[in-house]
Order: sequence, then C-alpha cells, then structure tokens
Amino acid sequence: MIKPNDVFLAACRRQQTSYTPVWLMRQAGRYMEEYRKLRRQYGFLELCKKSDLAAEITVTPVERLGVDAAILFADILLILEPMGVGLEYSKGDGPVIHHPVRSGKDVDGLKEFDPENELSFVYEAVKKISKTLENKVPLIGFAGAPFTLASYLIEGGGSRNYVHTKKLFYTAPDAWQRLMERLARDTAKYLNCQIAAGAEVVQIFDSWAGCLTPSDYEQFVLPHTRAVIEAVTPGVPVINFTTGTAGSLKHVRAAGGDVIGLDWRVNLDEAWETVGYDVAIQGNLDPVTLYAAPKEIKNRVADILRRAGARPGHIFNLGHGVLPEAPVDHVIAMVEAVHELSAR
Amino acid sequence: MIKPNDVFLAACRRQQTSYTPVWLMRQAGRYMEEYRKLRRQYGFLELCKKSDLAAEITVTPVERLGVDAAILFADILLILEPMGVGLEYSKGDGPVIHHPVRSGKDVDGLKEFDPENELSFVYEAVKKISKTLENKVPLIGFAGAPFTLASYLIEGGGSRNYVHTKKLFYTAPDAWQRLMERLARDTAKYLNCQIAAGAEVVQIFDSWAGCLTPSDYEQFVLPHTRAVIEAVTPGVPVINFTTGTAGSLKHVRAAGGDVIGLDWRVNLDEAWETVGYDVAIQGNLDPVTLYAAPKEIKNRVADILRRAGARPGHIFNLGHGVLPEAPVDHVIAMVEAVHELSAR
Repeated sequence: MIKPNDVFLAACRRQQTSYTPVWLMRQAGRYMEEYRKLRRQYGFLELCKKSDLAAEITVTPVERLGVDAAILFADILLILEPMGVGLEYSKGDGPVIHHPVRSGKDVDGLKEFDPENELSFVYEAVKKISKTLENKVPLIGFAGAPFTLASYLIEGGGSRNYVHTKKLFYTAPDAWQRLMERLARDTAKYLNCQIAAGAEVVQIFDSWAGCLTPSDYEQFVLPHTRAVIEAVTPGVPVINFTTGTAGSLKHVRAAGGDVIGLDWRVNLDEAWETVGYDVAIQGNLDPVTLYAAPKEIKNRVADILRRAGARPGHIFNLGHGVLPEAPVDHVIAMVEAVHELSAR
Repeated sequence: MIKPNDVFLAACRRQQTSYTPVWLMRQAGRYMEEYRKLRRQYGFLELCKKSDLAAEITVTPVERLGVDAAILFADILLILEPMGVGLEYSKGDGPVIHHPVRSGKDVDGLKEFDPENELSFVYEAVKKISKTLENKVPLIGFAGAPFTLASYLIEGGGSRNYVHTKKLFYTAPDAWQRLMERLARDTAKYLNCQIAAGAEVVQIFDSWAGCLTPSDYEQFVLPHTRAVIEAVTPGVPVINFTTGTAGSLKHVRAAGGDVIGLDWRVNLDEAWETVGYDVAIQGNLDPVTLYAAPKEIKNRVADILRRAGARPGHIFNLGHGVLPEAPVDHVIAMVEAVHELSAR
C-alpha cells in the first residue's frame, strides 16, 4: 500500500516537510493530450457535469506529473449558472454571460438556489476523485472569489478595463454590497459542500482583483472574501489566490487564508515578508517559463526555492494557470526540479 | 500676455510649486469630440503625419481642460514603421505588425534608418506645437520603452501572455540583446530630435513591463531603458512610466528618470517611499474613476493628494491613458479638483 502523501497538507499548516510540495493551477487542462482528446468528444460544461469524466480528468495529471495535490476539475463560473444569467462557454472566446448584471434591479433579479442541490454533480465528482486517489495526495476544492465572480456577472465575460464593474461600486454601492454578500454566501456553501464530499483544502481564485486600486480592494472586496474564508469549515486550510495585487498584498492577507497565493510579478521573499510569516505562501513561477528549456526552468525553480528559504510553509506552484501549449515534458521537468532541489 | 506656466517643469525638478500640476495620458484622444471629428476624416497614421493636424490635436485639450502640460500627439509605434515590419493600424483591433520579429535573423533583418530623417514629420509637429503653445505650458515628447516596442515587434500586436517575447529572451538572449540595443539607440535619437525641435520634457512608456517577473525586468529590460534615459539630452527631465510593476518598482527606479510614473494599482505614498524621495512621482488616479460622479472623482483626487503630502515633486495624472468614453466634463472636473485641492 502506498503511504499517503501529506506533504502538501503539512506545508499548508506551515509544518516542516522533507521537500517542497508542488502542484499546478490548471494541471488538468488543455496542455495535456488526454484532456484535449476528451474535449474533442464533449463540451466543456458536459465534462464538468459528467462526474466520472471530471474525476478522470482530475486524477490523470496527478499520475502523469507526480504532483503533491490534485485539484478538482471544474470551473469558477459553474456557480453562476443556476442564477439564470445565461452562462455559455462559447468556443474560442471564453465564457459569456448573456444577461449581465448592471443595476440593483438586476442584482435582486438573480435566481435564488441551493448550492447543495443544484451543484450536486460537483460533489459527486469530488467523491469519485477521493475514492480514486486512495489518499495518495490531498484533493483541493475551489471557487471563484466574490469579486471575480461579480466582475464576470457584470461585464458579461472577459474585460479589459472593468468599467461596468467599477461603475457599479462607484455609483450603486448598495447594489454592489447586496451582490457581493449574495456571492459570498453561495460561495461559502459551495465550498463547504465540496469539503463535506471530500475536499481537504480549498483555494479561492480572485484572478481579476489586480484591476483594482488598493483602496477599492480594501473597501469593496476584502470584507466579502473574508466572509467566505471565515465561513469555511474549521480546520480546512484555505488558499487565498489573487493576481496582479503586488501593491495590495497586505489587504489580500487581511482578507484571510492559511496560504497566500502569489503570481509571478513579485519576488516571493519580498511578498512573504509583506504578508507576514504567520501564513504559508504559494507560488510563483511565471507560467511562460514552461516554454523555456528544462535547464532554464530548473534555474528558475532554484531561484524561487532560494527565495523561500528553509522556513516551512512554501507550496511551489505557477503564478497562474498552465498555458495551453506548455509541453508536458517541461511540466514534468519542473515538478522533478522542485522535488530534487528542495529535498531536505 | 499670459505668463508662462512652469509649474509642471518645476514639479519634475522637485521644486516647490503653488499647486500640483496635472495632465492626462492620452489627453488628446478619442474621448474628445474634436478628435473624433478629425478621425472620421483621416486615418490614424495620417493624423500623426500631417503636422498641422497633429499640432492642433495636441493643443486643443490644453485649452479645453486647463492642464499644465501638453503632450505631443503621436504613437509609440511610429518608430517601428521605418524598420520595414509592416506596421498597420487596423480598425478596432489595434496596431498589427505583419512581419513579427521572432529570431536573431529577424532582428538582423530589421531595416536600418536615421530617426532624424525618417520621422521628421514628428519634429515638424513639435515645432508647430511649440509655436502655437506660446510657452503657455511645457510640451512633453515621448517614446515607447525598448521592452514595450520589442514586445509589439515580437508578438505582432497586442498580447495576453507575451509568450513569444519571453521565449526570445529565454532561448536567444543574444538576439534579445541586439534587438534591445537597437531599439534603445533609435529611441534615444528619436527623443533627442523631439527635444531639439522643442519638447521640454520626455516620457518613456513601458506599458507592458508589468508582464515580467522582477528578475526578468532587472536582467532583460532595465539596462536598455537605462541606456535610453542616460542618452537623453542633459537637463531635460525624463518621466519613466510603467504599468503593473508594483512588485518591481525598485528596479524601475534603478532604470532612471527624474519622475517615476505610477499606475493605480499601488498607493502613491507607499510607492514614493519605495522608489525614494530623490525622484519626483507622477500619478495615479484609476482611469475608470472618470466614469464616476464628479463628487466621487473629487474624493479620490483628494485621497491621492493627501498621500502625496506637502513634499514637492508630485505631478497629478491618471494611472494610464484616458479611456475613450470618459465624459469630457468629468475630465475637467478632475483637473479643477486637483488645482483647487492642492492650492498652497
């Protein structure tokens, strides 16, 4: 019997580990032939909803890459579908929301639903993954942070300047507050259902928080991310991940989380000092580095490990998701480099 | 006769001023009806090349807005056209480079040209603007920083992940070095010709530097931005502007410049402390703020002025260019708020 790998969980809790654990955001994704093959047969939402397939997609990279954690195959926008906003994963253009939310009336018109019932396919997948993983590595559940979810709802899809989102909190702060409270409430329930089904750690993705001024993050975002984190089942480590927030890290830290996830635009040692050594840190290799030669990848892994130093509580990861064209053998080289260079 | 307004120049030199000077990036742009009217008649490149029109476009917002500086109407990519890469300003999609530079061979194939002769239409515009302005306010010349220019050349247009750009410095650092040296050399000449024609301050735009890790900025970008800044005609203040570099500000500072330009993702007081009080600082209102009500704009102007404090050397600006749909009366309200609230 394989001994359960608890290195990742220990690092989340800032306990000493024999090496630095590593996983990759989007490690179950388009860069893997196994995944592309399934995507040729099924739509994206279909893959999320067929729990057998979602489980298979989740587990495959754990075996292929030798990473120290699995992350549920799902999407941060799944939670928006039952709200009746017309979510569609259109080909090439990314997700679209056909009925964007731009006013207090729109906020109040969002359909109420019970995350426990309407997203049961996610928890089914979590159960199947937990069974398949046989405790080899821990399973990470996840959700979008209220701000990133709100931005999608308001902009109706991807955005360059987030004009509609910011306009809502500038001009209708009450509507903003209601929307964020609603999203925080549903998100917390959704995460706790994932935990009840078997997720051992959860990550909150605030991928778009980097468009904000530090003050706007503090006033309009922080309280709602904090509400989610505070509502997570006690004892389950939370990873609070944002991008583009090098100037707001103290506020990100104040929102909570046992682990602060960094992107690559900041030096890990400086960021850890800023957020404080009473939290663990995750990151922060530039995802584009995986296009470089394995030797160069190894040099860059070494630099990040050097910055992390001997202090317990570093989880190696990319600074954002693996890019679709990253060569799988380079990803494996990265994982091996982390394990080899961090062995204590 | 109107007394020359030298408040902006004094602030660049960190001298005491009677109020905080203000101008806006892209103040001569699409948000103004006068500009849109001209754009209906002329192509973008045509407007840049017809020096009478470029001069008119430059001067109009100075009068309409009451700002303390004029900035040349031009584009950072003009310098790439004589290199023979097939620059085109396509409608809607932004600029396209039909023959992107992706190898050492491509770098060596870039056409040599003399910035003094081939870009003479820019200097003609500068001369006409200087005459029209009658010294009412100083004129800012500008250029793209080598990195942002290189990224356009390599990616062939806008980019999300800058994969080709980073691949070039990962895998062909010699070719990268040659490209950056070439761009730095041409850019310095181009800026000095603008200065010879009448520009009193120059700004270097490194709008894409925020995609880099701090180490990559330091190794692959900083030396070349520094080369440009060191080659600028002595005595002419240089504004070193980047975006998304909150985690790299010390390196940005090390590249040089009398004024460090900030985007809105960082608190101005913290950023000024990081770069040091021996440089002036420019910024940093979120451009989207101009969509808020004038009262809210004023509150946010007040917050930035409070962070700047009484220390000389603050130039008020947005954190990036004015957005195309910003209401002109809100822009005027912002300028008035800066003048009113900073009066000493």
